[in-house]
Amino acid sequence: MSLDKLQIIPLGGLGEFGMNCCAIRYGDHILVIDAGLMFPDEELLGVDIVVPDIGYLVENREQVKAILLTHGHEDHIGGLPWILTELRDVPVYGTEFTLAYVEGKLEEHKLLDDTEMLEMIPGEQFQIGPFRIQPIRVTHSLVDCVSLAIHTPVGTILHTGDFKVDLASPDGHPFDLQAFAELGRNGGVLALLQDSTNVDRPGHTPSELAVRPRLDEIFGRTKKRLFFSCFSSSIHRLKLAFELADKHDRKVAVIGRSLDNSTEIATDLGYIDIPPGILINGGQIKDYPPEKVCVLISGTQGEPMSALSRAAVDNHKHARIEPGDTVLLSSRIIPGNEKGIFRMIDHLVRRDANVIFDDGTQGIIHVSGHASQEELRLMINLVKPKYFIPVHGDYRHLKRHAELAASTGIPKQTFLLEDGDVLELTRDSATRRDKVRAGRILIDDGSTADVVDDLVIRDRRHLSEAGLLLPILAINKLTGLVEGAPEIIARGFAVPDPSILTEARQVIARTLDASSNEEKGDYGVIKEKIRTDLKRYIQKNTSRRPLIMPVILEI
Amino acid sequence: MSLDKLQIIPLGGLGEFGMNCCAIRYGDHILVIDAGLMFPDEELLGVDIVVPDIGYLVENREQVKAILLTHGHEDHIGGLPWILTELRDVPVYGTEFTLAYVEGKLEEHKLLDDTEMLEMIPGEQFQIGPFRIQPIRVTHSLVDCVSLAIHTPVGTILHTGDFKVDLASPDGHPFDLQAFAELGRNGGVLALLQDSTNVDRPGHTPSELAVRPRLDEIFGRTKKRLFFSCFSSSIHRLKLAFELADKHDRKVAVIGRSLDNSTEIATDLGYIDIPPGILINGGQIKDYPPEKVCVLISGTQGEPMSALSRAAVDNHKHARIEPGDTVLLSSRIIPGNEKGIFRMIDHLVRRDANVIFDDGTQGIIHVSGHASQEELRLMINLVKPKYFIPVHGDYRHLKRHAELAASTGIPKQTFLLEDGDVLELTRDSATRRDKVRAGRILIDDGSTADVVDDLVIRDRRHLSEAGLLLPILAINKLTGLVEGAPEIIARGFAVPDPSILTEARQVIARTLDASSNEEKGDYGVIKEKIRTDLKRYIQKNTSRRPLIMPVILEI
Repeated sequence: MSLDKLQIIPLGGLGEFGMNCCAIRYGDHILVIDAGLMFPDEELLGVDIVVPDIGYLVENREQVKAILLTHGHEDHIGGLPWILTELRDVPVYGTEFTLAYVEGKLEEHKLLDDTEMLEMIPGEQFQIGPFRIQPIRVTHSLVDCVSLAIHTPVGTILHTGDFKVDLASPDGHPFDLQAFAELGRNGGVLALLQDSTNVDRPGHTPSELAVRPRLDEIFGRTKKRLFFSCFSSSIHRLKLAFELADKHDRKVAVIGRSLDNSTEIATDLGYIDIPPGILINGGQIKDYPPEKVCVLISGTQGEPMSALSRAAVDNHKHARIEPGDTVLLSSRIIPGNEKGIFRMIDHLVRRDANVIFDDGTQGIIHVSGHASQEELRLMINLVKPKYFIPVHGDYRHLKRHAELAASTGIPKQTFLLEDGDVLELTRDSATRRDKVRAGRILIDDGSTADVVDDLVIRDRRHLSEAGLLLPILAINKLTGLVEGAPEIIARGFAVPDPSILTEARQVIARTLDASSNEEKGDYGVIKEKIRTDLKRYIQKNTSRRPLIMPVILEI
Repeated sequence: MSLDKLQIIPLGGLGEFGMNCCAIRYGDHILVIDAGLMFPDEELLGVDIVVPDIGYLVENREQVKAILLTHGHEDHIGGLPWILTELRDVPVYGTEFTLAYVEGKLEEHKLLDDTEMLEMIPGEQFQIGPFRIQPIRVTHSLVDCVSLAIHTPVGTILHTGDFKVDLASPDGHPFDLQAFAELGRNGGVLALLQDSTNVDRPGHTPSELAVRPRLDEIFGRTKKRLFFSCFSSSIHRLKLAFELADKHDRKVAVIGRSLDNSTEIATDLGYIDIPPGILINGGQIKDYPPEKVCVLISGTQGEPMSALSRAAVDNHKHARIEPGDTVLLSSRIIPGNEKGIFRMIDHLVRRDANVIFDDGTQGIIHVSGHASQEELRLMINLVKPKYFIPVHGDYRHLKRHAELAASTGIPKQTFLLEDGDVLELTRDSATRRDKVRAGRILIDDGSTADVVDDLVIRDRRHLSEAGLLLPILAINKLTGLVEGAPEIIARGFAVPDPSILTEARQVIARTLDASSNEEKGDYGVIKEKIRTDLKRYIQKNTSRRPLIMPVILEI
């Protein structure tokens, strides 16, 4: 690669929500921005997480100089253990709070000792090879988030990360309008990569502080216990919950591992001031009158093992819901989670709890952390990009975002990239190059990080839909004869009538009779013949299609 | 049962959306109102439909005098084939349009010849044993829908069915306010059973005609082909689509079996007037300039085999999406279907179609067919019920609806019933009695109607999450000795390392060595020992939990 060129290579998050990851390459130097995971669709049965295929980075292992994290949400840092296991020895840069989250994650995966973690301070620039990195403070639903301006020999690339323009600075750290404006002087940035999440929303996303009046009212009017649930990373929201509990004279118990962890980190780093004497532990809840207690509890998405789901079915040691208690879900319903959430709410209502969730009639009890259209336009106007690349979204969001950017009249050109696309930039041109390897890796269990291939998923889907039928034969290795009667095992398959299995055994016997000794000697052939004949018989007589898997046991 | 008492026995739809079914009993006479199905949660793997357990009706087979249908939606008529197969020889009453839908359904299940179908005409009363039935016309998203007033010796029961109060009468048949008002005179009805679907919505649901201005504008401004998709039973919407196509000089092709069937029935019965010469078939689409074509196409929910999903991936013979075409989804997103719908939309956007769906920013392109709070209050005010029973909804909807009814000050009492509850009424009392059998029946394949029990579902879930490991032993029946080496088959289970299987075989061998001959002779015991030891080994070495199913083959 010649030294007048720079490449932008998205590896995740362009064409889906989640698993955000983007490589920036100049000569022999590659920077990686974010290393996220994605939670799988339900159809990926049994898969726990999805991470980007980083084959491109592995192939160019020696060139990868750093991983830079914009903030601490799972879709930006959750793939880190996987990526670090593959790449090893790449330093990780993040802000103080982001690194605190990362630390717990790496410790869990026993990667902490082998990983160099370097703190970025918003506003303070630093050099990595030919890149000068400028982290710029932005506001978001999490704290200590940055956009990354990457100054390179051919121009400046700005990656916004996740952001909104929250002009009320809920944690006292304002969105750094001046730094962005500075980038816009003298011709602006070469390329802007901007968060597309809320591109469908007109106007300006309300400030985090917009939830305060309504939450205050709920804290005030609730007569019994108040169970308050929000995303564990909603640090602003947790801070507010402590403030309101203090104002309305309630003790606070924190229930749920992720909430506990977040609260601890946020307190250590000074984002939350817990009023003295207000904290109680789960076991103390019963010692206070109900109207003096607020329980911060995890599980807004109805996750079956979460504290709130367990409390909803009266299966939590400390969090017991009594008639007249209020449960407030200060969160959104993530698409795909509706059924689990509504089932949990139904259980809570059966316990005569007053459940408040964002059904559109409750006033502002939750706000988004992502920029709406006017904020997206504002950023484009501030930094005046020559080239514009929407990131973070399904294809339709990226497309709408490219149209929105073009309509400002500012970018010379917009590019609708997808994972694996390569955009090559010079000071005054941008050209698509051949795609690199990219895709999704399905991982079966967070802790062991085992990759699952498509065939396994297909088998699981088949098993899950129609069950399994297993004809088993014992063949004498010496004589080549079938010993005993063929056995048939059904599992996950409702046998409509026991006679079906009896007849199926006869079908196998007939298949064997009709096969030559040569065929019987070739287990592959005889298995396939049995499968075909049995499949035909089962489909005709039951209209169903279980997975049929002949087994030959050599004895 | 003494003759001064009447029982209301909901069998489905109280505690869930769908599978609506309710029995009304007086002495030896039982009427059944509606016979619906429910589409399963995704966790009911491979289950096609869910219907109410009608054990109570089967036990009282001789008393069941009629099934009365309020309207033709699947959640009210879809369980009919199953219920008729169980009960046989029960006459089915419905309005003309409802029976036309039922006819097709019964024909498909070969039940048409054996079923007596009797037409109800809104406003015309008829007698069944001690019951005088009064079907009252209501408005809804479907046509020819009725509420049922059932006049009994102890008083009148009113079951609203699904309704909204659409004062614009989109099909020219007005909601019969006068008939309801008449019921409210002289003390009102004894009990009101009312649709809870939209109890969360304040105000009054907009008229079906509210979609017209925006759809007219879309028909007018679209430059190329217009693909118009709505629920196949949205007869008003289909009628409007034909009108607007005519106005904007487009031919109409109808693609998709359910849409085709609905259009035909609605045309035959005079609900849709297809302008002469406007209809073309799929093969003719390509013969007209794009701006002269409207394609009515099925698949608003992203169902994988629907015409629109196939068109989205360019896999439909006639429906081809070209750049610049418009795809309009005049429908809502049914919770749980988000991922499929958005995946389809993404494919359409990749084909450079302009996709319009109800994302909250598109103006009114769809309206609900169910009554909002003011309409629910209006009905209560019209018919002045002594007792109020919310129907059709999850528990939280029923509860909120009971509260809304109580807040009008009209009912003497409200009852929060669930499936299987029995409410016994006299002229001036209402008492809960012991529950009857009720629940859900899972059916594996619409056409064969096979029941699936919970164990099968549990196996499928396990298989789908973690796959299957199958240790197989051949035991000589005569000697009791194990012949050959144990075999292990893995399916839907990613074996991290082939050595795992080799070692697993050794685990089995050790288990066998450590077992007495007596244990080996008891296949139940030896299977369980193998299962336990293998499970421990697999979990320790892979951190996963496949279904382990030892198989012993006797030879």
